[in-house]
Amino acid sequence: MAIVVQKYGGTSVGTIDKIKNVAKRVAKRKKSGDEIVVVVSAMGKTTDILMGMAEEISQNPDRRELDMLMSTGEQVSISLLSIALKELGYDCISLTGLQAGIQTEGSHTKARITDIEIENVRKHVTEEKIVVVAGFQGVDEKGNITTLGRGGSDTTAVALAAKLNSVCEIYTDVDGIYTVDPRLFSTAKKLDYISYEEMVEMASLGADVMETRSIEIAQRFNVPIYVALSTEEWPGTYIKEFDDSMESKVITGLSVSDDDIMITINHVPYGARNISKIFQSLALNDINVDMISQTAPFNGYINISFTAPQRDKFLIDGVLEEIKADLVGIEVDVEEDITKLSVVGIGMKSQSGVAANMFKIFADNDIEFKQVTTSEIRISYTINTNDKEKAVVAVAREFNL
Amino acid sequence: MAIVVQKYGGTSVGTIDKIKNVAKRVAKRKKSGDEIVVVVSAMGKTTDILMGMAEEISQNPDRRELDMLMSTGEQVSISLLSIALKELGYDCISLTGLQAGIQTEGSHTKARITDIEIENVRKHVTEEKIVVVAGFQGVDEKGNITTLGRGGSDTTAVALAAKLNSVCEIYTDVDGIYTVDPRLFSTAKKLDYISYEEMVEMASLGADVMETRSIEIAQRFNVPIYVALSTEEWPGTYIKEFDDSMESKVITGLSVSDDDIMITINHVPYGARNISKIFQSLALNDINVDMISQTAPFNGYINISFTAPQRDKFLIDGVLEEIKADLVGIEVDVEEDITKLSVVGIGMKSQSGVAANMFKIFADNDIEFKQVTTSEIRISYTINTNDKEKAVVAVAREFNL
Repeated sequence: MAIVVQKYGGTSVGTIDKIKNVAKRVAKRKKSGDEIVVVVSAMGKTTDILMGMAEEISQNPDRRELDMLMSTGEQVSISLLSIALKELGYDCISLTGLQAGIQTEGSHTKARITDIEIENVRKHVTEEKIVVVAGFQGVDEKGNITTLGRGGSDTTAVALAAKLNSVCEIYTDVDGIYTVDPRLFSTAKKLDYISYEEMVEMASLGADVMETRSIEIAQRFNVPIYVALSTEEWPGTYIKEFDDSMESKVITGLSVSDDDIMITINHVPYGARNISKIFQSLALNDINVDMISQTAPFNGYINISFTAPQRDKFLIDGVLEEIKADLVGIEVDVEEDITKLSVVGIGMKSQSGVAANMFKIFADNDIEFKQVTTSEIRISYTINTNDKEKAVVAVAREFNL
Repeated sequence: MAIVVQKYGGTSVGTIDKIKNVAKRVAKRKKSGDEIVVVVSAMGKTTDILMGMAEEISQNPDRRELDMLMSTGEQVSISLLSIALKELGYDCISLTGLQAGIQTEGSHTKARITDIEIENVRKHVTEEKIVVVAGFQGVDEKGNITTLGRGGSDTTAVALAAKLNSVCEIYTDVDGIYTVDPRLFSTAKKLDYISYEEMVEMASLGADVMETRSIEIAQRFNVPIYVALSTEEWPGTYIKEFDDSMESKVITGLSVSDDDIMITINHVPYGARNISKIFQSLALNDINVDMISQTAPFNGYINISFTAPQRDKFLIDGVLEEIKADLVGIEVDVEEDITKLSVVGIGMKSQSGVAANMFKIFADNDIEFKQVTTSEIRISYTINTNDKEKAVVAVAREFNL
C-alpha cells in the first residue's frame, strides 16, 4: 500500500465545481490503489474576505483571534471536499489541524510545526479512508489554534508526507518549476527535476511556486515532491535529492524578486556587539533578513546593507527607530525600488567563473548592482527594479535557461 | 464578583457594525463590574450560505461533515467579536466549543450536551478576561466537532450559566415573552415573569423565542434567564422558578404552531407491541413526536394520531412505508394543513373548567378540532390552519391575554 499526500491550493478549490473536480481526481487515484491524504487550502479569495472583515474592525487585529478567524477557511474546504468524496461513494474523513495532530510553536499567524501526532491520520489511512486535512493550521501547546503563515499548506503537506514516509504531490496553478519565471522570460524552460538544494535557493529568492520552509522539511526527511498543474495536462517537476539522472548544468535557474526592500546603515561604530544588536532586534520582530553585505571597517566604522520583506516595512521602521536611538550617529537609508536577481545551480560547486561571467553581463548591459552575496550554489545581486527586464533577458540568454 | 452569561443571536451579530455594537454593550457591562461570558451565534445568514454550498454538492450531505462546515460560522463570529473587544481595549479570549469544554453525545447535527469541562472558561474568567464562546457547537468523545441543532446557542449559554452558577441573559430580536405571538394578536401583553414550567410548555408548543431544551436545563439547574431585545430599548421577560411575586392567572399564554403535520394510522391491530413498533421506528430516526392521541380499541383495532415536525416529513414518509410493510391492512393518512393551538398556565393546576371553556369557544365559533391532549398545565388542540386566526382571537379575548 503506497501512501500519497496530495495538496491542492486555493485556486484549485476556488469554486464548488472545482471542489467537485478535485474530488473526482482524488477518487480516481484512490481507485488505482493508492491510499490518499489530501491537504487543502481555503477556497480562492476566502482569506482576503476574512481579513477584510477583521480590518473593518481593527487596523491591527489581535493575532490570536486572526488565527481563530483564518483557520475557518480551510475548515470549510475540507468539509466540502469530504461531502463531495462521500457523494462519489468514497469513505473519507476531514480533519482540522488540531485533529490531524499538527503541533506548532512560535507566534500567531506565523507558527512553525514542531511535530505531528500522526496516529489519528494513520488510523484512518489504515481503515482505507481518504483523509482530508486542513492545511495552513495547527494548535499550540496551550490548545490555541495557530496558522503557519505564507506557504503554510505546502508545509502541512510535506510534514505529513515526512511522517507517513510518503511522496508529496503539490497541485497548483503553475505547471512546474521553470529556469526563469515565464512571465519575465517567455522562452524559459521547464525543469523535469531540480534538487532540494537548488529549490531552496530558488524559493528563498522569490520563485513563487513553493516556500523555502516546505522544501527544507522535504530535504531533511528526504520527501520526494512533485509539482504540477491541478489539471495535470502535462508533466510537472520533481524536487528530490540530487542524483546522476539530473542534468548537470552549471546554472539551473534564475530567480527574481521584487518583494524586498534594501536597508543600508552607514557609519556604525565597528564592533560585533553593535552589529549583533541590529540583527537581534530584527529577529525578535520575526523579520526575515536576507542578503547581508558588510564592508570592511574604515576609520573604526563600517557600512552594512541587508534586504528584508517589503510586507514587514512597518515593523522594520520601528526597529530602525530603536536602533537610531541606541547607536547615535548612524545614518539609515531605505530603498524600496530594488530587485533581487539570483542565479542558482548545483554545478557552481565544481565550476568557477560564474561570478566573473555575471559581472561581465552587467557591465555589457549598463546595469548597476548595489549588493552581491554568494553561497556555494548561488550568486545574488540587488539591482534597480528599472533594470530588471534587461537583466533577466541578458542572464537567461547567456546561460541558455 | 458576579458572573453573567450573555447570548447574542445571529441577527444581533449580522453585520460588522452590529458586532461592534455588541462589543460596546459587552464592554459597558464589564466596566460596571461584572465578569462576562458571551455566547454568540453565526452571523446572520451564514448558516444558510454554508448549507447552500453543501447542498450544491450533495442532496443529502454527510452529517459529520456538515457539523465540520457549520461550526465555522460561530468561529468567525467569536473571533470578530474578540477583535472588536480588544480594539476597545478590553482583555478577552475567544473559545470554540471544544476549547470551552462542551462535551456532547448523540447524532451529528443534533447532538446533546452531556457535560462542560468548565476549567478553561473559569480560568479565563478568573483572570478577568471577557470570554467569548462559540454557541451551537461541541465535541464528541472521539474528538469530532458536533453541532447542537435548533436553539443550540441558547443551550450553550444556559449550560455554561448552570456550570458557572450565574444568570443567563438572552439577547435577541424579540423583546420578551408574550401571552400570544404579537404577529397573530396585536394587543397581546408582554409578561414580566414566566415560570420555567410554563415556558417549557410554551416553547415546546411553538413560541419561537427559545427552544424547550434550553429551558429544561435552566429549570433543572435553577438558572434565571432574562430575555430581551439586544438593543435593550425596554424591559424584557424573566424566566425563573415560580414564586408568589408572579401573577397567578389561570392562563398565562397561548401558543400557536404551524410547523407540524398530523399523521393518523387507522385499523391498527390492538396490542402494545404494534404501537410500540411504530413509535420505536420514529424515535430511531430522531423524529420528535408530539400530541399522541389514541382511541379505545374497537373490534380488536385502534386508531392513533400524532403530530411531528413538518421538516422531518421526508424521514416520516420513510418510516410510514416501513410500518405499512410490517402491519398489513393499516391505513395511513397525513394532514399537512394543521395548526396546534395550546393554552398554558400554572393556574390550571388548581382551577378546573378551562377545558369546558375552550370547547364552548370552539363551538360558538364553528371551529372543528381534530385532536385534544392535556397536561397538568396545558391543553392543546389540533385544528385546520384555516381556522387559526379566528381561534386565536376568540381564545385570547376570552382569557384576557
